Amino acid sequence: MDKGIFTFDVLKTIRDVFMDVKRGFASDNNSGIHPDILAEIQKVNTGHTIGYGDDRFTEEAEELFRIILGNETEVFFVFTGTAANVLGLTGVTQSWNSIITANTAHIEQDECGAAEKYSGCKVLPVDTQNGKINSAMISKHLYGFDFEHHSQPGAVSITQVTEMGTVYTPKEIKEIADFVHSYDMLLHMDGARLANAAAFLDIPFRSFTTDADVDLLSFGGTKNGMMYGEAVCFLKPGLSDNFKYVRKQGMQLASKMRYISAQFIAYFRNDLWLKNARHANNMAIKLAEEISKIDNITITQQIESNGLFVILPQHVAEEIRQSYFFYPWNEDISEYRLMTSWDTTESDIKGFVRLLSSVMNR
Amino acid sequence: MDKGIFTFDVLKTIRDVFMDVKRGFASDNNSGIHPDILAEIQKVNTGHTIGYGDDRFTEEAEELFRIILGNETEVFFVFTGTAANVLGLTGVTQSWNSIITANTAHIEQDECGAAEKYSGCKVLPVDTQNGKINSAMISKHLYGFDFEHHSQPGAVSITQVTEMGTVYTPKEIKEIADFVHSYDMLLHMDGARLANAAAFLDIPFRSFTTDADVDLLSFGGTKNGMMYGEAVCFLKPGLSDNFKYVRKQGMQLASKMRYISAQFIAYFRNDLWLKNARHANNMAIKLAEEISKIDNITITQQIESNGLFVILPQHVAEEIRQSYFFYPWNEDISEYRLMTSWDTTESDIKGFVRLLSSVMNR
Amino acid sequence: MDKGIFTFDVLKTIRDVFMDVKRGFASDNNSGIHPDILAEIQKVNTGHTIGYGDDRFTEEAEELFRIILGNETEVFFVFTGTAANVLGLTGVTQSWNSIITANTAHIEQDECGAAEKYSGCKVLPVDTQNGKINSAMISKHLYGFDFEHHSQPGAVSITQVTEMGTVYTPKEIKEIADFVHSYDMLLHMDGARLANAAAFLDIPFRSFTTDADVDLLSFGGTKNGMMYGEAVCFLKPGLSDNFKYVRKQGMQLASKMRYISAQFIAYFRNDLWLKNARHANNMAIKLAEEISKIDNITITQQIESNGLFVILPQHVAEEIRQSYFFYPWNEDISEYRLMTSWDTTESDIKGFVRLLSSVMNR
Amino acid sequence: MDKGIFTFDVLKTIRDVFMDVKRGFASDNNSGIHPDILAEIQKVNTGHTIGYGDDRFTEEAEELFRIILGNETEVFFVFTGTAANVLGLTGVTQSWNSIITANTAHIEQDECGAAEKYSGCKVLPVDTQNGKINSAMISKHLYGFDFEHHSQPGAVSITQVTEMGTVYTPKEIKEIADFVHSYDMLLHMDGARLANAAAFLDIPFRSFTTDADVDLLSFGGTKNGMMYGEAVCFLKPGLSDNFKYVRKQGMQLASKMRYISAQFIAYFRNDLWLKNARHANNMAIKLAEEISKIDNITITQQIESNGLFVILPQHVAEEIRQSYFFYPWNEDISEYRLMTSWDTTESDIKGFVRLLSSVMNR
Repeated sequence: MDKGIFTFDVLKTIRDVFMDVKRGFASDNNSGIHPDILAEIQKVNTGHTIGYGDDRFTEEAEELFRIILGNETEVFFVFTGTAANVLGLTGVTQSWNSIITANTAHIEQDECGAAEKYSGCKVLPVDTQNGKINSAMISKHLYGFDFEHHSQPGAVSITQVTEMGTVYTPKEIKEIADFVHSYDMLLHMDGARLANAAAFLDIPFRSFTTDADVDLLSFGGTKNGMMYGEAVCFLKPGLSDNFKYVRKQGMQLASKMRYISAQFIAYFRNDLWLKNARHANNMAIKLAEEISKIDNITITQQIESNGLFVILPQHVAEEIRQSYFFYPWNEDISEYRLMTSWDTTESDIKGFVRLLSSVMNR
Repeated sequence: MDKGIFTFDVLKTIRDVFMDVKRGFASDNNSGIHPDILAEIQKVNTGHTIGYGDDRFTEEAEELFRIILGNETEVFFVFTGTAANVLGLTGVTQSWNSIITANTAHIEQDECGAAEKYSGCKVLPVDTQNGKINSAMISKHLYGFDFEHHSQPGAVSITQVTEMGTVYTPKEIKEIADFVHSYDMLLHMDGARLANAAAFLDIPFRSFTTDADVDLLSFGGTKNGMMYGEAVCFLKPGLSDNFKYVRKQGMQLASKMRYISAQFIAYFRNDLWLKNARHANNMAIKLAEEISKIDNITITQQIESNGLFVILPQHVAEEIRQSYFFYPWNEDISEYRLMTSWDTTESDIKGFVRLLSSVMNR
Repeated sequence: MDKGIFTFDVLKTIRDVFMDVKRGFASDNNSGIHPDILAEIQKVNTGHTIGYGDDRFTEEAEELFRIILGNETEVFFVFTGTAANVLGLTGVTQSWNSIITANTAHIEQDECGAAEKYSGCKVLPVDTQNGKINSAMISKHLYGFDFEHHSQPGAVSITQVTEMGTVYTPKEIKEIADFVHSYDMLLHMDGARLANAAAFLDIPFRSFTTDADVDLLSFGGTKNGMMYGEAVCFLKPGLSDNFKYVRKQGMQLASKMRYISAQFIAYFRNDLWLKNARHANNMAIKLAEEISKIDNITITQQIESNGLFVILPQHVAEEIRQSYFFYPWNEDISEYRLMTSWDTTESDIKGFVRLLSSVMNR
Repeated sequence: MDKGIFTFDVLKTIRDVFMDVKRGFASDNNSGIHPDILAEIQKVNTGHTIGYGDDRFTEEAEELFRIILGNETEVFFVFTGTAANVLGLTGVTQSWNSIITANTAHIEQDECGAAEKYSGCKVLPVDTQNGKINSAMISKHLYGFDFEHHSQPGAVSITQVTEMGTVYTPKEIKEIADFVHSYDMLLHMDGARLANAAAFLDIPFRSFTTDADVDLLSFGGTKNGMMYGEAVCFLKPGLSDNFKYVRKQGMQLASKMRYISAQFIAYFRNDLWLKNARHANNMAIKLAEEISKIDNITITQQIESNGLFVILPQHVAEEIRQSYFFYPWNEDISEYRLMTSWDTTESDIKGFVRLLSSVMNR
């Protein structure tokens, strides 16, 4: 669950009350599967194929990744975003390395310590207000090289779109990459919402990944209309030589791989990914516009993707959350997160804003 | 890939030649999704639900498990059979325990050392010809208790159906369970093909799991018509208190959980699981009958489920495998494995046997 | 090597130039073994004893720990301070816990990520200027309880004496302990220089460990005149039930245990530990006094133990370090660390200060 | 504790009764420190040295290892034999490798699963009656190369002297090495009793390690008169590039390293190691000769080092063990192990045999 800081009591409420919710703004992973994706699964559901990825659907999907991210790309499908991050990073580090990342990052806040447990690495957080980090922030952790008492800085992990809904420009990414490479370290990108970033930047995936010298990418699809399935993409040669063992030992090798591959085929066909992401982003802008019209609500982050962070009176939030569930982000300042999705409708927004407005003005 | 011993050269052939195969006898995971399962996925694909399992489909599926396996059952869905085995065992052991299992077991042969890497435990194999172990075999590893130099025997893992296609009776399981419990150890069952065992024994799941005093069960569905999704079932109270953390840190918590849950709902409805498993088992018997009519082919294991082990001349196998792919099991004795599936047809068998017969008699 | 931030180039100089140094102020672990300790080793070096701690010297040493720290104390000897910290923490946490500590702590800076690799836990640093943390600082990491996406706060680790030479009062420790316990977490103390703290506070060990409700203690002796050997002390019942397995699997069970035990026996006899620590502390005060007389040198931390942090012109430091080796601490502000030891003499201080003074005034 | 199979009850007896024993035949690690070793520790105990191995004593000891084992040797001191085995193997494997070893090996029986926990590798045992393995035995585990479902065979570990007291010839080792290298695997030697092997073979260490193409060696000294300290020796270039991080993260970097180094300096001076090992071996032969004169006692293994395995009536063993403690090895056949040591005297043997004889003939 990607979210920030909330307490047990709030959480308990969620679990007790919201077993099945109407379409709301809790998370883009609360949405379902896009019909085109499901249709593709149905289409490949015929006859037998060799398991574990030695099938022609997987071959086709892999080829699509090479077209999109460059010929050097080596791609490995896994089940979850956590697995993509953790196994990918494990594949390019040694246990005595450190991994530097934003304090808001999924690997720092939301993966129950999976990176440390599996890779053995130390994860070093960098304070950030908007989810973005830069070389100056990273550099505070860059010392002790060659000194065996100190975890050796091995990789930097950035998130695109960040957990705060903000987006790195290609230039910002390239600058981090160059900086990181000057220390013989690698740059990983957690792309759980990569499509939303591409839609916002309005450029191809490649321009802000491979071409910005990112080494390793967790390419997500689940939050943008897929059922499940993420891709660990090694963008430079030589990084993935043994990754097939890492994935299998990491419990993430799918026997019926064609059903992940088929989803990616449909995802890329006719730019479905872009339509979905653009729609979600547009809905966030729309939602922000409508909310802005209500007095006494502060929007705390730039709207650069499908997330919206707002400061609301707590009692208002509590009341709205009975009808439309969403997560608190930072309870200290009564900040909440609203996420739009590929299936959010203008009517959803209208209904939500109407309720919010009426409660605020009561 | 569940199979035994084969060399790289054979494997390379597979990968080069068989990108997309006709329905054959390579593995039950080469088959697709049963239409009823896919229909159920489609059915629940509407609106939003809270992610990560806090939805009513997951609640329903969990309830079904309690009905089937007993009210004490705590069930956690994961993506793969390897994950079900490894995380389940991790949940009930300490790193200084040993886990005793058949030398043919999936955790010993086919999971790339995931159990050792993740749980930290030592896995101790027991020699077996037919995949089944018993208390006498297990006892050779039972010493050194309380002696800190020695990994403390913590769990026994048996596989039902075994990798050799054989099936434990409830009595055999109960005997192992009693023996294991007398040492304060736990009994785990790898049930990747649990349905085939139930179909063969013609008794409910519960009779040879919970009622036979199994503590922990990996309940598989993928090999019997599901798309993906396995269930870690704790059958005794108190074993799963912290397992939600183990699953998340183990990278196996599904965000869109409803699509696993829905599959299990359809799997249990109208005993779909039983129809599928019974069919596969019957097809194996049929295949064995037909093969028996051909001279000079030895069937090496009892047909108790959907697997068939045969000794064939190597050149014959090579030739057949051009048309119907299947795996060598033990190359030293020219033994091969044939697996039937929920979707195997009599016509598939007829075609295969006709070819085999003609090559053998040439 | 306990020290802060320095670069490879400085380090290289150390290794090339200082193979064998005169008595200086680099680290208290550069000093040798106190003669009484070595004499005790010699004394027990007669005949055979059962290995691995089942001997009467170990029994005697363990009894001394119970006398000193309380009857509930369970003590396990290991070889290094890193092992005492990491294995102790491993013994009282689960891999999905987090461990909160000062950003200066040894487990954060100086153990090459051993805590993460071995325990699997996430280590969460807290910013601190003087090495001491308090409940307000700790509380920023206390959220997400019962939420499986988030590493569960499991333990807090404080260092006594801190890496900055400062000392917690018993009251400060008790306050942290109470706070930590109110969250069902445990309090660990890294006591690599515990004797120096006791000498400064002028109270028994017990007053600021067991009686201040510390749960788990790494009790160090190496830096205060022992050859090697540290003690993991569990101060509350029920914490150490399985620790003998943790220690053995953690590669830290000594076969000839009597030679660690004997050192502790001599260390406690006639308060040798106290004489050594008091002397080192007094030498630090003396050194500070003398240095204060030189213009343009800033002492940056309170002198509460045997460490002294000073800001010197870099070229001065470089020159002095040719004769008396010591470590830079924070190169950004030209801060250096000077450590006194049980064997530091007034003459050592005189010689050092004379040189420093002459270089400063040149 | 190196020994075979015994039960808790026996163990409890040990712990309760034998807190401090006379010189007996329980284990060579029950003996003390040779006076020359202790004298060397005393000798280097003067002034300060840089910690963690950057001192001239460590430099000298390392140079001695290069003289003895060859110029390519890279040596790293650690505290225990378990650590030498586990960290050395970790340094040359990946977690998805398997390590093949004798079922009697220390890493299989006596290290509480440290190899699996720390390296993540699967340890695959090979059955052996006399502790020695060969290429034919190893080959049963050599399959599944390049197949990601299967742990990739990465290293073979042999023990010299074996746990059964037997010794590999240089030719036998070279044959295993050649075989292992033909699979691109590495050969590790657990040399906890390496000196006893050299003494038996009457050849230099190098002849059956480096010259026999061993890649990696755990060089032990503790069982042959040292206080503590073992050496991980990489015998081929390129294997140890990152090992300094492995050792530190593995909690095995000694701060006061000179006290390990000094022991090795004394150990090698004037062939002290050889005198000690030869003496122990000769005492084992003497003991065997004397025991052979008693009727109804079977010696089960060749006497090739300082260990003796005998079958005795259980009640006899029980009675003798009240006076001279020793370990049961295989209780099923009433087999016991007797170890001689560098400090065993002819009088010790005489006293023991006299008692044994009188109990047997009663």
